[in-house]
Amino acid sequence: MNKKTIDFWYEFASTYSYLAAERIGPLARDRGIIVRWRPFLLGPIFHAQGWNTTPFKIYKAKGDYMWRDMERQAARYGLPFKVPVVNELPQHSVLAARVALSLPDDGMRAEFSRRVYRAQWTADKCISDPEVISGILADMELDAGPLLAQTQTPDIKQALKDNTDEAISHGIFGAPSLTTPDGELFWGDDRLDQALDWVASR
Amino acid sequence: MNKKTIDFWYEFASTYSYLAAERIGPLARDRGIIVRWRPFLLGPIFHAQGWNTTPFKIYKAKGDYMWRDMERQAARYGLPFKVPVVNELPQHSVLAARVALSLPDDGMRAEFSRRVYRAQWTADKCISDPEVISGILADMELDAGPLLAQTQTPDIKQALKDNTDEAISHGIFGAPSLTTPDGELFWGDDRLDQALDWVASR
Repeated sequence: MNKKTIDFWYEFASTYSYLAAERIGPLARDRGIIVRWRPFLLGPIFHAQGWNTTPFKIYKAKGDYMWRDMERQAARYGLPFKVPVVNELPQHSVLAARVALSLPDDGMRAEFSRRVYRAQWTADKCISDPEVISGILADMELDAGPLLAQTQTPDIKQALKDNTDEAISHGIFGAPSLTTPDGELFWGDDRLDQALDWVASR
Repeated sequence: MNKKTIDFWYEFASTYSYLAAERIGPLARDRGIIVRWRPFLLGPIFHAQGWNTTPFKIYKAKGDYMWRDMERQAARYGLPFKVPVVNELPQHSVLAARVALSLPDDGMRAEFSRRVYRAQWTADKCISDPEVISGILADMELDAGPLLAQTQTPDIKQALKDNTDEAISHGIFGAPSLTTPDGELFWGDDRLDQALDWVASR
């Protein structure tokens, strides 16, 4: 069977990736498309273009706008959202990304990823805290110990580097992004429906 | 009569402003909203955040993406679009913006603005060339001479500066943008429908 696929590239520190992570499942299912969940890191990409943090911090007007836009978009989609106050932003996303990559991409990685986003963007939790990640894994009835240990193995470290390198090779410069089997790149939660329609129509 | 209004902030050098300029008329009319056409300059805003040109040139991956995204978006909307090859980008937009401000905002400014966008993004014309602008005005059966002379008056120069200052005061950092009477800012052609829906629902 020749099943249609799309690659969903997401960064755990990203606001708009949260919206797309919550939305993509049903939208892809409706179109008969399998989503490949591809966590990657924006840090190295931003660093290569001379930024030492997120553009939302470097460019204040853009950052101010983003928070208001996120509130409005989340409300439109019926998703909870709370501007974080406790944790400094952007959060460190390496631990969450490595755990995600340790989980099979059969629904479990997607579920873990959505829960990390909810912890960050609705409950103001620190997603680089192993306790927080362990709690999420425990809620999923997974054994946190071996999974956290695995994040320190060369294989998982390399897998995340490889994902990030592959993202760069696709021309990805922000998150979320989507790539199609025929080589199209779509950037942003705003292009989620179009990216899926593109794949569905091929 | 308490007519609903929205302010449409556009920069003549902007790609996505072209899409919004072509789309906003019917969408606003359907909702009984009057559009206030507000040309402004992004140059001073970009300069204040340390950029000496458009971010699409500074960040190559983002620029490459933008051209492909523009092609896809224009096709979706049934609008012609041609990536310019003759003219260096971004084009100088001061002349077009000053002429636009010299025209009454009763449909004439909108019509002139759309024609300038079409000249730039479908016919690869130089919009800082007085001949090109004169041609557009002549096609509209307007007398180009006095209008071009007016662009050199202190009043029109100040009016464009004032528009740009007002844009900054609204937190505008890119084009197109839309502002509502109750103080919301929406950025991008992607938020055009939502901005109009926001005003219509108030």
